[in-house]
Parts: sequence; structure tokens; C-alpha cells
Amino acid sequence: MFLALDFVGVFIFAVTGALVAARVRQDFVTCAFFAGMTGMGGGTIRDLLIGAPVFWMGHGWFIAVCLLATLAVWVLRTDQWPGKPLRWLDAIGLSAYCAFGSLKALSFGVDPIPAVVMGVITATFGGVIRDVVAGQPSILMQREIYVTAAIAGATVTVLLSAAGNLNGWIAGTAGAAIALIIRAGAIARGWKLPIHPG
Amino acid sequence: MFLALDFVGVFIFAVTGALVAARVRQDFVTCAFFAGMTGMGGGTIRDLLIGAPVFWMGHGWFIAVCLLATLAVWVLRTDQWPGKPLRWLDAIGLSAYCAFGSLKALSFGVDPIPAVVMGVITATFGGVIRDVVAGQPSILMQREIYVTAAIAGATVTVLLSAAGNLNGWIAGTAGAAIALIIRAGAIARGWKLPIHPG
Amino acid sequence: MFLALDFVGVFIFAVTGALVAARVRQDFVTCAFFAGMTGMGGGTIRDLLIGAPVFWMGHGWFIAVCLLATLAVWVLRTDQWPGKPLRWLDAIGLSAYCAFGSLKALSFGVDPIPAVVMGVITATFGGVIRDVVAGQPSILMQREIYVTAAIAGATVTVLLSAAGNLNGWIAGTAGAAIALIIRAGAIARGWKLPIHPG
Repeated sequence: MFLALDFVGVFIFAVTGALVAARVRQDFVTCAFFAGMTGMGGGTIRDLLIGAPVFWMGHGWFIAVCLLATLAVWVLRTDQWPGKPLRWLDAIGLSAYCAFGSLKALSFGVDPIPAVVMGVITATFGGVIRDVVAGQPSILMQREIYVTAAIAGATVTVLLSAAGNLNGWIAGTAGAAIALIIRAGAIARGWKLPIHPG
Repeated sequence: MFLALDFVGVFIFAVTGALVAARVRQDFVTCAFFAGMTGMGGGTIRDLLIGAPVFWMGHGWFIAVCLLATLAVWVLRTDQWPGKPLRWLDAIGLSAYCAFGSLKALSFGVDPIPAVVMGVITATFGGVIRDVVAGQPSILMQREIYVTAAIAGATVTVLLSAAGNLNGWIAGTAGAAIALIIRAGAIARGWKLPIHPG
Repeated sequence: MFLALDFVGVFIFAVTGALVAARVRQDFVTCAFFAGMTGMGGGTIRDLLIGAPVFWMGHGWFIAVCLLATLAVWVLRTDQWPGKPLRWLDAIGLSAYCAFGSLKALSFGVDPIPAVVMGVITATFGGVIRDVVAGQPSILMQREIYVTAAIAGATVTVLLSAAGNLNGWIAGTAGAAIALIIRAGAIARGWKLPIHPG
């Protein structure tokens, strides 16, 4: 079950990475490179930090998922679709990954507060790497509610799972739902946090 | 004792990270994100490289320190203080961390020369990550004596500790003092190294 | 034998790192810092990902090689040489490292498909880090055949070594040769992949 969630998260973030590269008219290999960095970057950093074996080393399926995502972007010309598919896809990936990342950290014996941070890192660092390597302003700097949604989702997941003793799957679903609602509000309604009153 | 040094280093670098984000008028969460990346980034990379468990995984106190640093920046409006508090704080963090990082590497059986490099990485990579993610020109590129101060401090620490057999605390204090003096000279007096005579 | 290849790869990438810093007229220490990041960055990330001890922790020789590379750039004024030495050196380093990286991953029990990716990461991430920290547009974004050459070289290496059961040295040489031929064609003849037909 968790494995399925992980594949979905990797696929969605990989699509956003390939889209960013396709939009600046890169070739297929560069698109795939960005798909891989974005799709697997956050989870890779999580695994290194919690001392887990890096999740995509044991077999080639995660890499195949990233290639599939690249192919989908390439064939479907998703970079020409109307609206903001990139941001909505990113929101779904963010939600799935903040829950999954904090659950995996808890399962490796990480303390609850760092486990929340691991959920946030899993959810956000793929996108941060994508933006930094592409030379784009990071989504962090755009004053949107983004990290906040991941914090809320990871916190709910850890609270329900560690304190509430709930089954990880239920805790994770609740956490992902919270994150998605908050991020959706930010995208659709322009929710913002107050900036520094400097 | 070392733990205290580590908390001080994390706090100071976290303040510089939060300051950078506050100056470009980001919200509290983004400030905290930058505080965490800057405060814990260098030490995290050090721990990964020397094969130590990442230092902030076992409990939530380091994360609490980063939040405290963010709160301090937010409440005290330190971004409006006169002068260059950011650079002086950064100098203190740099000095504490080049000594601490090389001592920790030595204690994990790293060879002396790589241990010097680990001190330098601990002291500088938090700031490098902060600048790269914020999209600012890295302090590395500004032709100031910055890395040099960390090299000098880490070298003195390793020499006194490994070759001189001195107690780590004494070696570290001496190394940190050297680093601080050199960096202070660079800030206050504009000390520079010769550039490439191209 | 492999150790020799590794030293050559580190040296060549270190030269490219020092050259980038020297060209924007940085001081010796910044040049050395870039030499180290570029020379050892890709291999460091590879070792972290496959769970190997980081290759330059046990002794100071790799760091010495990076300093030597910096000194060579500094003394020989290579930044003023005609032509594009940086790109050709980078091509040689890329070829040696995509072969070496995938062989090392295989020897640590990594599955063949991720082992190809490890070769690509070893070969390309030093340069990616160099460009990101220097604030330059990454070579990834320049629509040249670069990653593709590393993929081809790593794939050939892994196929010959894992499937073909060939000796690693023969497989690696064949892989490196393929990578070099493809990259040379891209530099000298302007070979390109088709961009996204957006």
C-alpha cells in the first residue's frame, strides 16, 4: 500500500520536473534528468538523513516511473494544456509525500519532531532542487502557502500516528488530506501568511 | 560542553538564515525553513559524509532552537538594525563550527586532512545552501576572506588536537579564535587574498 | 588501477572547477573550494547514495589532488588558453566517471538500472554543483548532448559488466570510450537531441 503511494508521489513530482524542463524547450534526456531529480530527490534526502537505504537502489522500477512520467509529458504535450496543471499536480505530490515521509521516518525510530521535518523535506526538497538547478526562483520565495501545507500535513500525520496510536495508513490519509486542503486554498483562493512586518 | 557549542552554532546560523528570508519580506514559515537549512545544513552534510547519525534526528531541540532563532528575528526586527549584524553573527558561527566540525570528524576516525575539510564544510555549507536557495550570489563569490578563515581555524584545531595531543576543548577554542580573528579582519579591515592574476 | 582512474577523474574535474572560479577572478582559496566541490562532488553523492564510505575520508590524497589541480590552473594561467579546454577536459572526466561510477555501484550490490544512474550522477553532479554554486546557467540547460553521453557510457559499462560478465576494466574502458565519442561529437560537431516539440 505504502509502496503504491510512493510510486504515485514519484510519478507526480517527476511529471512536474519534466514539465519545467519541457517548458524551456529542453531535450528528452534533460527532461528525464529533471523528472528523476524532482521525483526522487526529496525521498532520497529523507533516506540519507534517517539512515535508510536509498529507496530506488534495489530495483529499477522507480527510475522506470520517472521515464514514464517524462514520456507522458513528451507525448501528451502537457506543457500546452490550459490552466495550471503543474501547480495542482505539485499539490497532490506534496500532500502524499509529507504524510509518507513522516511515517517512514517514524518507522526508522526518528523522534516525532524531526519526523515532522522529514515529512516536510520529503515533500518540498524535490521541488527545491528542481527550481535551483533550473535556475528558477524557488517556490519557497514566492510567498505562497507551500511549506506550511506540508508542515500541517506532517504534523497531523505524526500526531495521529505517534500520539494517537492510529494505524499509519489512516494517520497518513488524514495528514495528506489536511495538506491538500491548505495547499488548494493557497492556489485557488490565494491564501497567504503575513510577511515579516519589516 | 560540545553540545552547548553546537546549539550556539545552530542558533547563530539559523538567525542569519531567518534574516536573509526576512529581508526579502518572506513569511514566518519561509523564515523558519531558511533558519533550519542554514542552521543545520552544514552539520548535516558533515554527519552524512563522516557516517555519523545526523545530529538533529534523535530529539526536537535543535529544531526548537531554529524556531527560536526565527522568532527572535521576527520579534526583534533585527533586519532593521543598523550595521552588518548578519556578517558578524555569521563570523561567530563560522568560527565555532570550523572547530567543532573538525573535532567531530576526528572523533569518528576521519584522517587529519579530510577532518580539516569537514570543519570547513560544517562552517560554510549552511551559508552556501542559504544563498543558493535564496537565489543570492554566494558569499564564496564575493572575494572576501571567508573560507580561508574556516581553513585556518580547522587546521589549527586539527594540528593541536591530533598532532599536539591537546584536549579537544582547548584545541577547538584556539582554532575558533584564529578563525574569528581572520574573519573579523576581513569584515572590519577589508583583508583580501590576491585574485587570480589572469 | 581503478584508484588511478579515480585520481584522474578527480584531477580533471577539479581543474574545471578551479577554472570556473579563476575566470571570474576569484582568489586561490575560492578556486580550491570549487576544485574540491567539482572534483569530489559527484563521487561523494554516489558514495552516499550507495551506502559506501565516502571515498576521500580515509586519507588526504584526493584533497591533495584538488589542490594540485588548483595550483596548475593558477600557475599555468589556463584560463587564458585559447579554445575550449574546459569543455574538453570536462568531456574526459565525464567519460572516466560514468564508467567508474557504475562499476563501483555494481560492486556494492546496486541493481543494474540504478547502477547506470549512479554512473550518470558520478559523472554529472560535480559539474552541476559547480554551476549552481557559481550562479552560472547549468550545463544541463544548454541543450548540449551531455547527460546523454554519460547515460550511454554507463549503460555500455553495466551491460558488458553485469550481463556480459566481462572484466570491469574492459567494460569500463568500452563504456568510457563510447561516452567520450558521443560527447566529442557534441562539442566538435554540435550534435543535438531534438527538443520538446512544444
